[in-house]
Amino acid sequence: MNINSSREIERKFLVKRLPPGLKRFRHFQIAQGYLASEPGGRHMRLRKKGKTASLTFKVGRGSAREEREIRLSAKQFATLWPATRGRRLRKTRYEIPWKNLKIEVDIYHGRNHGLMVAEVEFPSQASCRKFKPPRWFGREVTGEKRYSNVRLPRE
Amino acid sequence: MNINSSREIERKFLVKRLPPGLKRFRHFQIAQGYLASEPGGRHMRLRKKGKTASLTFKVGRGSAREEREIRLSAKQFATLWPATRGRRLRKTRYEIPWKNLKIEVDIYHGRNHGLMVAEVEFPSQASCRKFKPPRWFGREVTGEKRYSNVRLPRE
Repeated sequence: MNINSSREIERKFLVKRLPPGLKRFRHFQIAQGYLASEPGGRHMRLRKKGKTASLTFKVGRGSAREEREIRLSAKQFATLWPATRGRRLRKTRYEIPWKNLKIEVDIYHGRNHGLMVAEVEFPSQASCRKFKPPRWFGREVTGEKRYSNVRLPRE
Repeated sequence: MNINSSREIERKFLVKRLPPGLKRFRHFQIAQGYLASEPGGRHMRLRKKGKTASLTFKVGRGSAREEREIRLSAKQFATLWPATRGRRLRKTRYEIPWKNLKIEVDIYHGRNHGLMVAEVEFPSQASCRKFKPPRWFGREVTGEKRYSNVRLPRE
């Protein structure tokens, strides 16, 4: 399988309260928009994370999920970005090391202001099952469509 | 509007018989696949035309049509192409100068073998209306969904 494609093992949680000292962790402004999304979930996402532009293809959910991503030049990004008008969202992402894992905390802006979500990616099914969420995590929302970025309100 | 985006004025016809000496005109092998297509027609197309790879966003039809296209590197193309499996079509395109216009003749292969379509792009609404099709053109199919590439049988 291509180095830029992956099948991910992830769990997703709402964030009850932000952990102390959040600001000292690495973070990025993310703006993303959806170029085309099929009713079944297959879609193309355009994203700028900090200064890095990327285009991502996603299909399926759970264990059948497939992702393919390419980096875009600033010029490639600028040509496609206007096509996402009315289908965008913005968030700040914090990357928090946690034991041997990485927690990504997304704090949404604009129409999704108030929504905070934590995502954890696991190297194996075993570590996924064994994971004990830190106390600042709220309800688990893994697989819940309404918290899928592609279905959140857009602007 | 960006140089890579356009609103096109086009007419499309079936081809009754191929014009004589077709082979001497510039032609390309085209392989294209659809990454994601919405029921309303909005879609992302990945294409290799000769050795040139491109990614195209399309939305709308008729005068409300919008297109945005970027060139891709061979590596970017190779990463995304597997995502179009089962959603591809192949054709040979001939580019035929005709008066001050260019006729593109697409001869389809694979599941669409036997289908031949000619497309003419016009610089203005006036030249579009005045156009008199050459005698080897068949029925006009402008705007007919079934001849839209995104709706043809795929493989």
